[in-house]
Amino acid sequence: MGAEEKEVTSSQELGAYLGISSAQIRKDLSQFGEFGKQGTGYNINFLIKQLRKILHVEKVWDVVLIGAGYLGHAVANYAGFFERGFRIVSVYDDDASKIGQAIGDFRVESTENMVDQIRAKGVQVAMLAVPANQAQNVAEMLVDAGVKAILSYAPTSLKVPEDIRIQYIDPVLHLQRMTYYVP
Amino acid sequence: MGAEEKEVTSSQELGAYLGISSAQIRKDLSQFGEFGKQGTGYNINFLIKQLRKILHVEKVWDVVLIGAGYLGHAVANYAGFFERGFRIVSVYDDDASKIGQAIGDFRVESTENMVDQIRAKGVQVAMLAVPANQAQNVAEMLVDAGVKAILSYAPTSLKVPEDIRIQYIDPVLHLQRMTYYVP
Repeated sequence: MGAEEKEVTSSQELGAYLGISSAQIRKDLSQFGEFGKQGTGYNINFLIKQLRKILHVEKVWDVVLIGAGYLGHAVANYAGFFERGFRIVSVYDDDASKIGQAIGDFRVESTENMVDQIRAKGVQVAMLAVPANQAQNVAEMLVDAGVKAILSYAPTSLKVPEDIRIQYIDPVLHLQRMTYYVP
Repeated sequence: MGAEEKEVTSSQELGAYLGISSAQIRKDLSQFGEFGKQGTGYNINFLIKQLRKILHVEKVWDVVLIGAGYLGHAVANYAGFFERGFRIVSVYDDDASKIGQAIGDFRVESTENMVDQIRAKGVQVAMLAVPANQAQNVAEMLVDAGVKAILSYAPTSLKVPEDIRIQYIDPVLHLQRMTYYVP
């Protein structure tokens, strides 16, 4: 919404945008302090800044992407990262035919020196867009490189040390959440 | 796990696979009845069948996929659908250069007759892999076609009637869930 160059919004507008009631918006925000005055609405930039602080998302995180196939291309081109605090800094693949290819704003780099490069840059977040049978191996390289959080698109469960956070993009889980209710 | 051709598993093995304790596995399963005898483990096929019933996932759902770009290719090639109860039956795109292309086991079809075709086939589940600025329009076509559940990969919030289920693939949400905890 920041992109629309409006300065002020209301709980009604936010509620309509999010599909929840304006009363709920006001109630939720009031848990964290005062963000607007009754009748005058919320200053959008101020609100964004405060919410980022509350949600611990006020910094921009560097992210490496592993895998430059169809999925890697899709992820590299995904429009939603930067404005929500994430910036892809490198894209890696082990396929010689892909290395050097343009993908989004990047050139695909070889996984050969990946561990050293990630460690040198201090990148702590990675996205895995490699085939299921390569995912465990790559995850171990990432852990070795000092990555602390891995988002995997591969349809397989990964084993990582306890201090490493891992999340999965699992479309089937989302489909099941819906079809459970479809008669 | 069914693919590994083992006949019997144990709560220890399931727990290790899922990263939770064997005691939790036994406790969770016991909520729904008796699935194995102490000391003999669980018959895998029986367990899968029972769990599918409990989770309402014993049928295979037909799914249409809209969008045959990088993301559509990745989704069409995703290995995890069929064994978990979903089968892509058609892939649509409105880009003339993509129509007729092979994608996974499919030929990309034109969106021109999409609404009638989906309605005729009675497909109730769709996945949206189109750009954000086309997602609302396509979602409305799908609702018109009788689709009841939409999984959207587009980084935008969609408005659909109340009786339609919608879920989003939102990688940023997953990233934030992890980086919240990274020091």
